[in-house]
Amino acid sequence: MRVVVPFDAREPKTRLSGVLDGPERSAFARAMLRDVLDAVRSAGGEPAVLATADVDVGVPVTVDERSLTPAINDRLGAADVPLAIVMGDLALAVPDAVERLLDADGPVVLVPGRGGGTNALVVREPAFHVDFHGASFRDHRRIASEAGIDPSVVDSYRLSTDVDEPADLVEVLLHGEGRAAAWLEDEGFELVVNDGRVDVGRD
Amino acid sequence: MRVVVPFDAREPKTRLSGVLDGPERSAFARAMLRDVLDAVRSAGGEPAVLATADVDVGVPVTVDERSLTPAINDRLGAADVPLAIVMGDLALAVPDAVERLLDADGPVVLVPGRGGGTNALVVREPAFHVDFHGASFRDHRRIASEAGIDPSVVDSYRLSTDVDEPADLVEVLLHGEGRAAAWLEDEGFELVVNDGRVDVGRD
Repeated sequence: MRVVVPFDAREPKTRLSGVLDGPERSAFARAMLRDVLDAVRSAGGEPAVLATADVDVGVPVTVDERSLTPAINDRLGAADVPLAIVMGDLALAVPDAVERLLDADGPVVLVPGRGGGTNALVVREPAFHVDFHGASFRDHRRIASEAGIDPSVVDSYRLSTDVDEPADLVEVLLHGEGRAAAWLEDEGFELVVNDGRVDVGRD
Repeated sequence: MRVVVPFDAREPKTRLSGVLDGPERSAFARAMLRDVLDAVRSAGGEPAVLATADVDVGVPVTVDERSLTPAINDRLGAADVPLAIVMGDLALAVPDAVERLLDADGPVVLVPGRGGGTNALVVREPAFHVDFHGASFRDHRRIASEAGIDPSVVDSYRLSTDVDEPADLVEVLLHGEGRAAAWLEDEGFELVVNDGRVDVGRD
């Protein structure tokens, strides 16, 4: 299946600016993207990046400067389904988890993101469209329902974990198996346990 | 399989004190516990509660005032395995997710909790013991490794979501299917979307 992987190539991961400067955020975001592309390929998907600016990661890249919703909806015509969408910041993605997504049955398959978002979809029904603003998981259920579709949901901690905020780096250090976790370790990040609470520190 | 469900019956969910007063936290914690017990029963498990004080939820309750680590380890003797442990605050637990846990192969099965914790385990090897303080998922991997065990990991967003902080209520409102979600709705909680970010409000 073709898998579109959205990526912000211009100002990625601004909510990490308290712990990573601009060049670091760019490098870390690209490490996560490469981890996602590896997992998609190993799961048998054919990845292509949809980016806000050109990026060199060894797969086809389409540059679209618009926001994600119109950029994706332009690709959801009848000629384009089935199509999967897997966000480029799922640093815990592994082949098994992506396989569960691509193998899930149904006209629309959703993977929730923590905090109300949608981290991945499979669309087999061209009447469906996306809306990534706000509580997109709720909106995607509503859009599916309005099209007479009962969406399937894949229950994966790995795919539900998108990396936006410093607290998310705990998950990457503990459960990441690829370049993003290695990049954090190389940059001196490590787990810090204070009073039973787990955080990240940097040496 | 026997499933121990730990529950703090005395001062549950103190990190929710900014949004729920004491009696509310107690009622909400009990709603979550009942959801977990329902999911365990529907998945074919035999639940028993391990609580810091007596609680009436229609299943056997053992009161143990100690912290969780010694209370669980006392139950991990050879006569007691296989034994599953499923935390009482997994408000998104559904039978399918618990079935995946109970059906997972291996001498030790772990489910990570967000933030470094361990939300559920299956123990079939009495040489294993638990340590719930701090980054317990890392510790449980180490303890398993020292016993020559390669632990299995179940990848479930539902089981990885324990409810500790106000932000976690977003997950319950969006994805909960039981008493805890209904309780929040009855108490006037709802999703609020501001600037694309999703939070909870109370009317």
